[in-house]
Amino acid sequence: MPQDLLPLSRQSVELAFDAIKSQIHRTPIFTSSSLSDGLPNKNVLYFKAENLQKGGAFKFRGATYNLGCLSESELEKGVCTHSSGNHAGALALAAKLKGTKCYVVMPSNSAQPKVDAVRSYDAEITFCEPNAPARAATLAQVQARTGAIFIPPYDAVNTILGQGTALLELLEQVPELLAAVIAPVGGGGLLAGTALAAEGTGIRVFGAEPAGADDCAQGLKEGKRRQEVDPHTIADGLRTPVGALNFPIIQEKVEKVIVVSEEEIIEAMRLIWERMKIIVEPSSATAFAAARSNEFQKLGIKGPIGIIISGGNVDLSKPLPWVNTANAE
Amino acid sequence: MPQDLLPLSRQSVELAFDAIKSQIHRTPIFTSSSLSDGLPNKNVLYFKAENLQKGGAFKFRGATYNLGCLSESELEKGVCTHSSGNHAGALALAAKLKGTKCYVVMPSNSAQPKVDAVRSYDAEITFCEPNAPARAATLAQVQARTGAIFIPPYDAVNTILGQGTALLELLEQVPELLAAVIAPVGGGGLLAGTALAAEGTGIRVFGAEPAGADDCAQGLKEGKRRQEVDPHTIADGLRTPVGALNFPIIQEKVEKVIVVSEEEIIEAMRLIWERMKIIVEPSSATAFAAARSNEFQKLGIKGPIGIIISGGNVDLSKPLPWVNTANAE
Repeated sequence: MPQDLLPLSRQSVELAFDAIKSQIHRTPIFTSSSLSDGLPNKNVLYFKAENLQKGGAFKFRGATYNLGCLSESELEKGVCTHSSGNHAGALALAAKLKGTKCYVVMPSNSAQPKVDAVRSYDAEITFCEPNAPARAATLAQVQARTGAIFIPPYDAVNTILGQGTALLELLEQVPELLAAVIAPVGGGGLLAGTALAAEGTGIRVFGAEPAGADDCAQGLKEGKRRQEVDPHTIADGLRTPVGALNFPIIQEKVEKVIVVSEEEIIEAMRLIWERMKIIVEPSSATAFAAARSNEFQKLGIKGPIGIIISGGNVDLSKPLPWVNTANAE
Repeated sequence: MPQDLLPLSRQSVELAFDAIKSQIHRTPIFTSSSLSDGLPNKNVLYFKAENLQKGGAFKFRGATYNLGCLSESELEKGVCTHSSGNHAGALALAAKLKGTKCYVVMPSNSAQPKVDAVRSYDAEITFCEPNAPARAATLAQVQARTGAIFIPPYDAVNTILGQGTALLELLEQVPELLAAVIAPVGGGGLLAGTALAAEGTGIRVFGAEPAGADDCAQGLKEGKRRQEVDPHTIADGLRTPVGALNFPIIQEKVEKVIVVSEEEIIEAMRLIWERMKIIVEPSSATAFAAARSNEFQKLGIKGPIGIIISGGNVDLSKPLPWVNTANAE
């Protein structure tokens, strides 16, 4: 049924959670005593495994909530978006499950597995030149032709509320009160939603951002959102600038965005693969890398920490980032 | 407390399960509609994720049950085994958790991650030449010096009973009756235990074996166990000949051992990594490869199938088996 936009608050995240609960996976929590023991503050880490969410990423939450807010007549026209990554796959899958048509604008240089995923969910793909003006123009054409409703990847109320449900679910699953939670930040849908979901709980909220795309951390220092970023990072989910709606929420509610290096991201990713036997993408490893960083550990937080594992969509046809193929047999 | 050996029966597997339940992980079940939809018989597959077991493999079950059957005075002397793989790590971890000393004889060419794992659990390693006589002689020396009790990797009643508990746990977790279950076979601890656990349930039991180490399948055809195997397979957990105690159980209770090629194993492994986002070792992928095989599918079994994912201990410093490093960027 159609809904007016809810206010940006914890209660709204709770309502979004109620709305999508029956359509999403309740993803499991992982812990690892060896990873916890390796931390100076010995924090118990609760990893929220959204890599095991439908579509392989938390993005399915926001996509599902967005679709649930559309009217029957809107659903008949279908939905559209632009994305080269997890949002496209999530929206395509959510639309398929809802019996709604989905149109996706993807840059012509998108990774083949992402294209294949979107196609496997029966979405119609329109390719465009890999730049922002071409993307906007192509999306406008698709909308003009189809009347499809645009579902934004991060810079939208319903997207933010949907993504925040991952923390609510984590809190239901964890047997003790969290001292802090860390989520990666790209466009800021997940981090802003997480911050809203943590409101009033006393849980300290941190973001994790690659040094090669640290527009959010820089914007926080400067007191003003940076609207562009020239990303150089393996964390392909975090290459976008933080959104206009997302930034002020982060500014108000997130204690700090921890910046981590490429080496720290790759090392964190490898540790998760080796010790927990789950496949996480570099963007997800960024949050664990932040938990391990000096900057975070020197805060002296002693209690348990939630880590939002954002997704597991890795191009497995490529060498692993820590494998030196020159030395490979 | 010390126990006499139980008979090889389903009831004994149940007793073993009761004995170890509080010490093992209750590993999750995974399903994948895309993997099921790809099968001619559209079987719902329930993957029992023993890659997420303590130590990264089902071997922890048998090791834990073996230790629980020892007397206090035996535990004081410690335990020993020979293994280059998951049994060594599992026994070392189970012994550490029990506060018991563990001695492991490993071939000098063992993979470094396996050596590191055994060491991280505080076991004492003695290296030997990589051949059977050297292994036996070195183990005998260790036993003579320490008095440690030998815990065999597969060819022993308690080991078989312990491994069979994975199926009992799976049956508790699955909401419907399984039509069949498939487990990989190397030494046969897991497959024999699974067959015992399935007794009287009507569940059809299948083994999965690499063509490059198919001594069990050949032995079944010939009506006589092959005592040696010259293995050529990526499935490093399945390179041993099937055990003397294991073979007759398999002969009596397993409907068929499905033989799969290296290509089928690697393809199955890749599908599990990509679709389910979990890390499984080639030996585990063998069971899924068998489920996908013509030989199995042409049996026309329509119902749900259990797949025992045996472990997730992969050397992640090496290139993935499906990645052509010559073409890598």
